[in-house]
Amino acid sequence: MTTTENPVRNGVDTATLFATLDAVKGNTDIAKFRYRATNRWVSGTHNRSTIHGFYGAMQEMTHQQPWTFDADHPAVLVGNDNGPTPVEYVLHALAACLTAGLANIAAARGVNLTEVESTVEGDIDLLGILGLSDRVRNGYEQIRVSFKLRGDDPEKLRRVVEQSRNRSAVFDIVTNGVPVAIEVDAG
Amino acid sequence: MTTTENPVRNGVDTATLFATLDAVKGNTDIAKFRYRATNRWVSGTHNRSTIHGFYGAMQEMTHQQPWTFDADHPAVLVGNDNGPTPVEYVLHALAACLTAGLANIAAARGVNLTEVESTVEGDIDLLGILGLSDRVRNGYEQIRVSFKLRGDDPEKLRRVVEQSRNRSAVFDIVTNGVPVAIEVDAG
Repeated sequence: MTTTENPVRNGVDTATLFATLDAVKGNTDIAKFRYRATNRWVSGTHNRSTIHGFYGAMQEMTHQQPWTFDADHPAVLVGNDNGPTPVEYVLHALAACLTAGLANIAAARGVNLTEVESTVEGDIDLLGILGLSDRVRNGYEQIRVSFKLRGDDPEKLRRVVEQSRNRSAVFDIVTNGVPVAIEVDAG
Repeated sequence: MTTTENPVRNGVDTATLFATLDAVKGNTDIAKFRYRATNRWVSGTHNRSTIHGFYGAMQEMTHQQPWTFDADHPAVLVGNDNGPTPVEYVLHALAACLTAGLANIAAARGVNLTEVESTVEGDIDLLGILGLSDRVRNGYEQIRVSFKLRGDDPEKLRRVVEQSRNRSAVFDIVTNGVPVAIEVDAG
């Protein structure tokens, strides 16, 4: 097997990856995860999220450190530009998910990568969120992802991207939608 | 008008907010925005996005600085935990968008906020992305947002959250989905 010949490929520990798949096959409860972010309003459109704890592999876990992320609107949208807009974080999440996936999939298939870059663009007409048109949606009208990959045979690289798209959590969330429930404690 | 009596409320410059709305009504092309993120693979599931330039208000613009964000998988998912997972960034984006919106909406309505906190949780069964079940989707099965607001009358605060949900770009993206096109340059 290629994986035993070269257990680390593209920085992916394929031996551990396959062992993890086997463990999950043996007990599917390991695969039930619950991710979490907490957010605190700072002022105006500026707010800050913390990402630290999550549930997975049948236990409560934490990342190696808490990370905080500021979001704001730019001056042109009456904010103070203390961070990216929330919709830009969605583009980052999409690029990151597809890229992590293709690195894993390439490693599992024995395909070498030397370079992966992407640009993600989203078109949004603010007439929606500004409440100035009922015919314009609030979110992006369309998103385009442009990948540049270098490594093994181009056709293999293209199939790796295709499979990453087929197995990407964020691609699924962004293209198919997820039910969101909101509860409010207003005191 | 309340807005001229108190042009800054909740840290929102309501005078500028209303002036911006008037400007957009006068020329709807101002509202056409294109956001962008670039991403570069580092190793394994670790990759890094940069957010800096965007198009809006009929011109190419930049944020006051480029921001970079690392994403990775935790050790339990065979990564090195150099950053949150991509799906956690989606939770942050949702909390940030709803929170920015409610600060703006409250200010526009003359409603004072003193505190806004939220927790966003997403349930995901990794049998989907691991390719171990065709009946499990890749993305979140459901997302729950829990807000705690303090300030003026609780009923007014609840209506502000409701309107923020109705006008949130990320809530729309996450609940309704967006078409995503992927192109690949594999050399």
